[in-house]
Order: sequence, then structure tokens, then C-alpha cells
Amino acid sequence: MVKSFKYVKHMRLKSGMSVGDLAKEMSATGVLGAGKIGEASRLVTEMFSDPDYTVFLTLSGALVPAGFRHIIHDLITDEYVNVLVTTGANTVHDMVEALGYRHIIGSFQAEDRRLRNENIGRIGDVFIEQKAFQALEKWLYKTVEAIPEEKRRRISGAELLSEIGKRIKDKDSILAAAAEKNVPVICPAFVDSIAGFQMWMFGQDKTLRLDPFLDTKTILDKVYDAKRVGIIILGGGVPKHFALFANTFREGVDAAVQITMDRPEPGGLSGASLEEAISWGKVKPKGNAVTVICDATIAFPLIVAAALENLRKK
Amino acid sequence: MVKSFKYVKHMRLKSGMSVGDLAKEMSATGVLGAGKIGEASRLVTEMFSDPDYTVFLTLSGALVPAGFRHIIHDLITDEYVNVLVTTGANTVHDMVEALGYRHIIGSFQAEDRRLRNENIGRIGDVFIEQKAFQALEKWLYKTVEAIPEEKRRRISGAELLSEIGKRIKDKDSILAAAAEKNVPVICPAFVDSIAGFQMWMFGQDKTLRLDPFLDTKTILDKVYDAKRVGIIILGGGVPKHFALFANTFREGVDAAVQITMDRPEPGGLSGASLEEAISWGKVKPKGNAVTVICDATIAFPLIVAAALENLRKK
Amino acid sequence: MVKSFKYVKHMRLKSGMSVGDLAKEMSATGVLGAGKIGEASRLVTEMFSDPDYTVFLTLSGALVPAGFRHIIHDLITDEYVNVLVTTGANTVHDMVEALGYRHIIGSFQAEDRRLRNENIGRIGDVFIEQKAFQALEKWLYKTVEAIPEEKRRRISGAELLSEIGKRIKDKDSILAAAAEKNVPVICPAFVDSIAGFQMWMFGQDKTLRLDPFLDTKTILDKVYDAKRVGIIILGGGVPKHFALFANTFREGVDAAVQITMDRPEPGGLSGASLEEAISWGKVKPKGNAVTVICDATIAFPLIVAAALENLRKK
Amino acid sequence: MVKSFKYVKHMRLKSGMSVGDLAKEMSATGVLGAGKIGEASRLVTEMFSDPDYTVFLTLSGALVPAGFRHIIHDLITDEYVNVLVTTGANTVHDMVEALGYRHIIGSFQAEDRRLRNENIGRIGDVFIEQKAFQALEKWLYKTVEAIPEEKRRRISGAELLSEIGKRIKDKDSILAAAAEKNVPVICPAFVDSIAGFQMWMFGQDKTLRLDPFLDTKTILDKVYDAKRVGIIILGGGVPKHFALFANTFREGVDAAVQITMDRPEPGGLSGASLEEAISWGKVKPKGNAVTVICDATIAFPLIVAAALENLRKK
Repeated sequence: MVKSFKYVKHMRLKSGMSVGDLAKEMSATGVLGAGKIGEASRLVTEMFSDPDYTVFLTLSGALVPAGFRHIIHDLITDEYVNVLVTTGANTVHDMVEALGYRHIIGSFQAEDRRLRNENIGRIGDVFIEQKAFQALEKWLYKTVEAIPEEKRRRISGAELLSEIGKRIKDKDSILAAAAEKNVPVICPAFVDSIAGFQMWMFGQDKTLRLDPFLDTKTILDKVYDAKRVGIIILGGGVPKHFALFANTFREGVDAAVQITMDRPEPGGLSGASLEEAISWGKVKPKGNAVTVICDATIAFPLIVAAALENLRKK
Repeated sequence: MVKSFKYVKHMRLKSGMSVGDLAKEMSATGVLGAGKIGEASRLVTEMFSDPDYTVFLTLSGALVPAGFRHIIHDLITDEYVNVLVTTGANTVHDMVEALGYRHIIGSFQAEDRRLRNENIGRIGDVFIEQKAFQALEKWLYKTVEAIPEEKRRRISGAELLSEIGKRIKDKDSILAAAAEKNVPVICPAFVDSIAGFQMWMFGQDKTLRLDPFLDTKTILDKVYDAKRVGIIILGGGVPKHFALFANTFREGVDAAVQITMDRPEPGGLSGASLEEAISWGKVKPKGNAVTVICDATIAFPLIVAAALENLRKK
Repeated sequence: MVKSFKYVKHMRLKSGMSVGDLAKEMSATGVLGAGKIGEASRLVTEMFSDPDYTVFLTLSGALVPAGFRHIIHDLITDEYVNVLVTTGANTVHDMVEALGYRHIIGSFQAEDRRLRNENIGRIGDVFIEQKAFQALEKWLYKTVEAIPEEKRRRISGAELLSEIGKRIKDKDSILAAAAEKNVPVICPAFVDSIAGFQMWMFGQDKTLRLDPFLDTKTILDKVYDAKRVGIIILGGGVPKHFALFANTFREGVDAAVQITMDRPEPGGLSGASLEEAISWGKVKPKGNAVTVICDATIAFPLIVAAALENLRKK
Repeated sequence: MVKSFKYVKHMRLKSGMSVGDLAKEMSATGVLGAGKIGEASRLVTEMFSDPDYTVFLTLSGALVPAGFRHIIHDLITDEYVNVLVTTGANTVHDMVEALGYRHIIGSFQAEDRRLRNENIGRIGDVFIEQKAFQALEKWLYKTVEAIPEEKRRRISGAELLSEIGKRIKDKDSILAAAAEKNVPVICPAFVDSIAGFQMWMFGQDKTLRLDPFLDTKTILDKVYDAKRVGIIILGGGVPKHFALFANTFREGVDAAVQITMDRPEPGGLSGASLEEAISWGKVKPKGNAVTVICDATIAFPLIVAAALENLRKK
């Protein structure tokens, strides 16, 4: 079974070491979480450096509220990420910041009844003022109204988000960057977001018909066009499933990195292993895949910074 | 702070005791997981017994594959559950069983490459043959074709599932029961399911345009009509968020039971506490809410069986 | 790979059903958490009914504070459990209750600075007054003083706890029941408990020398004498490891049930799978073993009540 | 409640950035996991730079097998850590490496029955050959025999480990470094380790009487002598409890960093929050404390490397 052994190499830490060096030390252990960080850094470097790769990034969880806006923006602008599949919420929080509202450092121990009275919504230990969403509603109304009615008769979530992105002035916006770089922002459950409910209200007055099957087409086009597919999955949910299932149409992705705190045991897709994904044809039998059981706000910046450093050295 | 103490009562187990008796013993501890089971049983009993309650049940995770089909079916048929909000997958697996395919007892340690070769998909330790989905595709094509084209020009996910439900002959089917009892099956991310992809293909040939905003309307109608709202959340994901956010339109639900293995720390909505939901107006400040950190396949049958027993005794 | 399939049977719930019936329904699913509850019930029934089994029960976590006192007491008194391996804390909380102090239903959201001022210690959502430990100290001083000095010159944790147990008058006490039934209460890290620190203080004045190797001998005697070994592991920690490692001296246990919320990924022993235990000779290669990923306060009462019902039917 | 807001600052990643820079970016978010890493880095920097601090490091879980040997060794040698409280296993794996045996990069999916046949033990995805423990047994026998018998009549775990450490030639050994630097290695459950069982066997032939209360004294001496106490808790278990409870004798630690994947909900001490620790007087009411919910093999190297960089800049 174990013919020639490969040994765990102990990490050595140095003051001032680069993130790439740290990832290399972790990689050399080859085991447990640190080893997975090493393997994930290697795979992400491969996805980012090989032009044959179409890279899907899926987002679930409060990543924009958590401080991921620049990271995702830069990955799109620098053309490392080619398709974004996300919850509606992450687009909402990008828009809200584009309007000048900020996420607030709060606390898990906050008194929620009091926050309610003060019109503050809580996301873990992040706070956001409700007035941000009121401003969003007004802005979104005008912005979507400015999209030609013809287009609004049948529009995909991705087109709608692209049209919105084109009209965002904030240069740090993820949606703006995606619109500029023609990176589709696919949001299969866009209706399930604050903006989704606001768009429903818009649709009471004005023309707006979302056609979610157009999003299916958009993602499948990307799948069919790809020479190789790499996927980075942050959290699970609909974005994970939609992106992986779309890739069954090409016999699976070639490389996959999943960062999640969910586990397989309760049976949900969010915690499903990438091994399981092989059985469905979502990941190629010979594909490389690694799951990092870690808070994405810790693991993802570490992995990306290491990959960027590796790229420079290539 | 603690003026008059309420004490932990130690559980006493007896051979042959009923599930309701066990839940009562758990309830009397008042603490940790057992205490939460007790509190959840009490809340579910209240939701099920008070006719003023409109009860929302949200499903995420592999509940139908896990053996929940009769439980959900019966809760609908017996009119305890009034609105179902679900992932597409649970509807797919209900349909597949209605066609005579069965879920197979598998293993977490299965070799996924081999399963792939044998055309078996794995969900945790549940297996399912891919041919079930091929049969589904054929059946779904004919079934949806039988829906008048006029209707197919603009249809909500809930209507589509209701039309499908009407055409299912299996008396154990959740969709069939829901159609019969006029319980809307709301699936905000229906496109993100095997049936969703199959319906996209159908739409290449035939008329089919989903309008997801109609689902928004459907859930909001239920929210506006309700005197009181109770919600039971199994897992998290889009179903949890969509159902809770819809209830902000009436200042929040009155009673909520959440069963999940997700936790608040990583910041995702799936693991968000029901306290946090108060800050958003999803749960009323005076609402009763309990989160049970447990595998839903263990906790939910226990809680429901206890509630059913309590109902009989009322 | 999968030649003859065994199918998932959907659970059917009935008002008034017994816990054994519920466990049977869960068992018939064969998958995920419910399936594991079924398998665990079967294994515990086997351990409890076959007189060849020596049954080890290991306790970590706040089980006595959580309301497990009667359950553990009764399993000892009814001779289902033959060896108890535990953290010191569970013995401390048993003693404190024997002195008439009670655990209080508290809250996870308590203000801990205020509790500190009010001399209340918090364990999750359980409170306990510090005066209970002051009373314990006095009582323990006198009680241990009453043990003949000769014995105190070299005593194992198990003997010390047995001597203490003999002097407890409360008929609900776990230690008293264990002393009466000659069930050793093995506590390899007894010094790491409030009573352990109190015994250290006792040892400043009076003779008391613990010899932890005597506990090694005690557990190994049980291991060597056993025809078959069954082990039930609640939580992980030192009790899990000590009991499992001792059983490597007989090539492993025959049957094992582990209930824990810990997972294998971070590499700690507490979350280690029972499969891993096979590699160490802790579980026999042909042994039956099941891990239930669940809060023990929920799963254990359910499993035990089901097993007791099964026993009656045998 | 929220008068003047502090805002989440989005992370900016740069190729070649140092670990300290990454930690600073994480710190500036102020929220979720990344924010906790930032706070933990700040606290560890404080502990390591202020000479008034006595720093306790507690180890649970497979840290030495996971590649932590150099990190812990260096923290001792560079005098950042003053007291080590550990499971026996981490000392065993340090000794085994000192004897020239290495930990092997294995797999979570290994076939454990086969590993058993090949005399390989598995710890998560780390393998170790059983012959390492046979060699340990021989070496330990001779090594402990070389300790003067007088000392062996009554010896603490810490003294025993110090005597062993003095006799280790490998300059990378944690035990050797600790012996040289007079850092006590406190192991309250030493009997619960492979070496503990081997020492029990030694004690069948030769004189060896462990007195665990001497470990209590050793840790309390450190507690009483400290001007300020900082504690870094990796994993939970007996090491966490013993170190924290000892600090109740000085009204609690001043600063605490806990890295764990365990959570409070099931009620065990391993997952208990550091807030809860305030109620017991383990952490000072005004103490600074942060819990990072993360795999320690990822978070700890990141935090330590950042702290070392901060120290240099001071």
C-alpha cells in the first residue's frame, strides 16, 4: 500500500517571510489543513497561469461584507477569473458599497432587538444600516429603468447584472469590473436577494422579466468553450451546485479548489466532497481537487496571495 | 441576573417510552441540545395546533434521498404545513421516486471513480442510478408538454411544480400531495437542479418561460394572508433566506425552529442564528425561536413525532 | 461494486409511537444521521444483551450538568455498563449534586462578567453556583480524610473515586452506584478537575498520593478479563483515547459506538474516525463500529431508550 | 448602541507580500475569521514582546505529526513560550522523531485494515510505522532507567519529561529545547499516551512512581510567579482546562488566544468560549481574548509568522 514513503516536513517560520514562503512551508507538511492550503495554492497557481483554463469562482456567504471586494475585483480585472457564480447577496453588498455605504465592524454578541430598533442589520459580526438598502432601491429603480425596455422584456440575471455594472461609477466595484471585462456574473437565485425583491417591486410598475434559463445558457456557453476548467468554490449553496452541474456537460472540471466549513456527514451539497462530485461527472476522474475545511476569509486570501507570488516567479 | 433559578432536571429513560415522553424528558433538562429539542417540540406543537398559523417548511440538503418523503408528504396531507420552500433537488428526487426509482443505501467510503463508471451518483452515503434521471427527462418532457402552451409562456416555479404534481400518480409523492392540498412548492433556484437543466433543454424545442418574480408574488401572498407565521427551517441556503426575507414584509415570523449543522462563525446565512434574523425583521422581536444544532435526519423526525403525540393529547 | 441494492426506506411517523419504533424507522433509511442512529441502537442492544460483553462507557463534555445523571446511574445499576472512563468534571458534578446543589438552566448569551460577580460559573447554557464547589471542598476534605491513611499512601484515581462513592448517601449518585456495583470509574486526568485541585490542597496537609499507573492496571485488568468488549464513546478526549488504547492489548474492541460533534479533518483524536482506530488495533478489523455525528444529549438518550425497548422484546 | 462606526476595510493582496502584511490586511477587515486572525496576531505580538508576560502554550491534537515540531521548538528556544501544557501524544511524537522515525504523508481515505496488517498507524492523513513505537519503548526503558532511582520514587510528569529531554540528542527536539530552557512540559494525563503505557510496563520491573499533584504544583508556581499571563490554546482538551483552571488562582489570564474547530453548542470544555472562561475566573474580566475557529495547522503558523514580523518592527 505504502511503498515509498513521502515524509511530513516540519514548517519553519521566519520573521518577514512572504505569504508564498509560508504556503510553501505548509505545502511541505503535506498533511491536514496546512497541507491542503499548500495543495490549493498549487492548483490555483496552475489555473491562473495556464491560459487554457477558464476559471469559475463561486461565492456563497458574506464575502463582500467580510472585506473581499478588492480581492474579487482584482481577480476579475487581472483576468484570473472568467466566470463568477454568486448568491444575490454578494452583488447587493457590492452595489451598496458603490453607493457609498460601508459595512460596519460589529459583534456576534450584539443585542438584535436593539439593532432592529436602530435599523441596523447584522451579518455575523458585520453591521449594515438599513438606509443603505433604501438608497439601493431608489438607485436600482433609476438604473434598471435606464436599460432599454426591449432588453427588459427578457433578460437573464447575468445580463441584468452586467447592465447594472456598466452603470456603476465606483472603480472598486466587482460588478463594474465584471461588466468591463465581460465576465458573466451568474446568479441563479437572484430573486432571493434584497435586490431581487426590489426588482420584483420594480416589475409591478415597469417592464422586467427575468429568464433564468438564459443564465443556464450563459454558463453552458462558457463550459462548452473552455479548453480546461478550473473552479474555486467559496462556501457551497446554489453557486457551487450550478457551476459544478453545468460542468457535467463537458465531463467535469479539470481542477477544483473548495473552501468551506461544511462537512459531508449531514448529506447537503454544500458540504459534499469533491470526490463525491466525481461520481456525478462534475469533476473529471483524473481531475485535481482539494477541499480546505476552513473559514474562507482566512484561507482564500492566503491561497490567492501565495498564488500571485508563484505567478511572478514563473 | 439570575434571581429565581430553574433547575436542570435529569432525564429518566424507560423501555417502551413514547417519543413524546422522550422529548418531555429532554425538555425538562432545559439545556444544550436536548433542551433545544424540547423547546423545538413545543414550538412545532404550537404551530401545528393553532389554526391561526401559516406554517412554512424550508428544505435544503438531501432530505428526500435521506428518507423524508413520507414525513413531508404526511405533513402536507394532514395540513400541518402550508408552504414548502425547497431546493430543486428535493423535488427532483420526489419525482424520481414517483417514477419507480429508488434511493440506494451506499457508503461515504465508496470509490467515486467506479461509481462514475457504473453510472451511479453519490449523495453522502446514498446512491442513485443515473438512469433514473434519464427516465425523468423523458417523463418530464411529456408531462410539461401536456401543460397548455398558454400557461407555459409565463409560469412560476411553483405553478410548474403544481402542474407536475397534478400529473404524478404515485400517492406517496410530495409534489402530488402539495398539488392536491394547494400547498405552493416554491423553489427560487429551480434552474439549479437536474430538472432545471432538463427544462432548459425542453425550452430549446418548446415554449417554456419561467418567471421567478411570480414565485416572489406567491410567497408574499402567503405572507400577507397569514395571521401568524411559523417556520421550520431544515438546513439553510436559498430556501431559508427566501422564506425569512419574504416575512420581513410582515415584520417577521412569530415562531421559528431551525435545524442545521451550520454555525454562525463563518458568516454565511445558512448558519446564521435566529437572533440575527431579528435584526433584519425576519423574526419578530417577541417571536419564539430555537435553533437545534443537529443533523436534521435525527432531530426532525424526533421533533415531529413528539409534536404529533402532543397534538393528540391536547 | 453495487450488485444487489438495498434501498432507502422512507420513515413513517405516528403519534404515540415508541422510541424503539422511531429508531426502527430511522434504521430502515440506512443512510445519513438517521441510519447511524439505527445502527448504533442495534449495536448498543447487542452490547447490553450479550452477557459476554464487557461494556466501557467513556464520558467527555458536560454530561452530568446536561441532565445525564439518571441515565448513567441506571446503566450502571442495571449492569449494562461495566467500566466508566471519564473526565474529572463529570465526577465533580455528580458529587456536587449529591451534596444537594443543582445545575441551573442558564443561557449561552449570559453576560459572563456579571456571572463572575455573582459567583456563578457557566458551562454552555448551564449555570452552577461557586458555593457548590466550596461545599464540595469541605465535604471532600472530610470524606477523603476518612479513608484509611494506609490506603491514601498509594491510591489510584479509580480507588479514590470508589472510596468517595461509598461515602455518598444520595441514591441517584453515579459514583455511589459505581462503588456499589464494583464498576471502576477511571479518570486518567483526575488532577485536571476542580476536585483534583482540591485534592492537591488536601495533599499539602494530609497524606494523599495518587498513582495513575494503578488506573492503567485497573483498565487493563478489565480488558484482559473481557470475552468481548463493547465501547460507547460520548465526546472524545482522554477518556476516548485511554479506553481505546487499553483495548489494543486485546487486539481491539468488538463493537464501538461513538457519538461526537468532532470531525476527523483537523487531526485530533477526539474527531478521529473508528476506521482510523482499526489501523491502531483499537477496534478489531472485523469489529462493528458506528460514529454518530450528533450532540450526545440528543443522540444518546434516543439510542439508549431504543436499546432498552429492544432488550425487553428479546 | 453603535455611536461612531468603525468600518470594514477590504483586503488588498499583493504578490510577494509578507505574512505580516497579510495579517494586517485581515486585521483591517475587523470581522469574521480574518478579523480574528488579525486580533490574534496583535495579542500574540503583545505576549511575545512584553517581558512581563509568562506565556503558556497548550497543545491538543496531532500537532507534532502535522509538522509543528520546529515551530514549537523555536518558540521555546527563542523564549517566547514559558510553559508548555500538552497531551502525552505530542511528546511521544517528538521523541519518535528524535529517534529518527518520520511521519509519513498518508491519506484520509486509506484502507485501515490494510494499514493494520502493514503495522502502520493512521492519524488523519498522517501515517506512522508501529516500529517507531517499539524503538521508543526500548529507548525509553534505557533512558528512564538512567534517571537516578531516588528521583524515580516520586516524580512529576514534567520532571520525567525534563529528564528525558536532557537525554535527547536531536537538536530539533521540543523536549530537549524545553529541558534546556527550563520550560516545564506539563502533561496532566501522561498515562494516557503510548509512552504512558510503556512507562506503566517499566514500572512493573523498575521503580517509577508518577505523582500528578507535583504537576499541579509546577503549574501553580508558574501562575503565582507571573506578572502577567498570556495563553495560546491550540485545540482544547485537558491541556486547555488544566492551564486555564490553574490561572483561576491568580484571577485569570490577561490575554488569551484560542484556535479550535470545536464549538460551544455541545457543551464540552474544548469548544467553550473564552467569554465563558471569564465567568469562572479563568480569564480576567478586563482580559483580552480571541477565539479563532480554524484548523490550527493553518491559523497558528500564520499568526506566529505575523507576530514574529511585528516583533522585529517594534
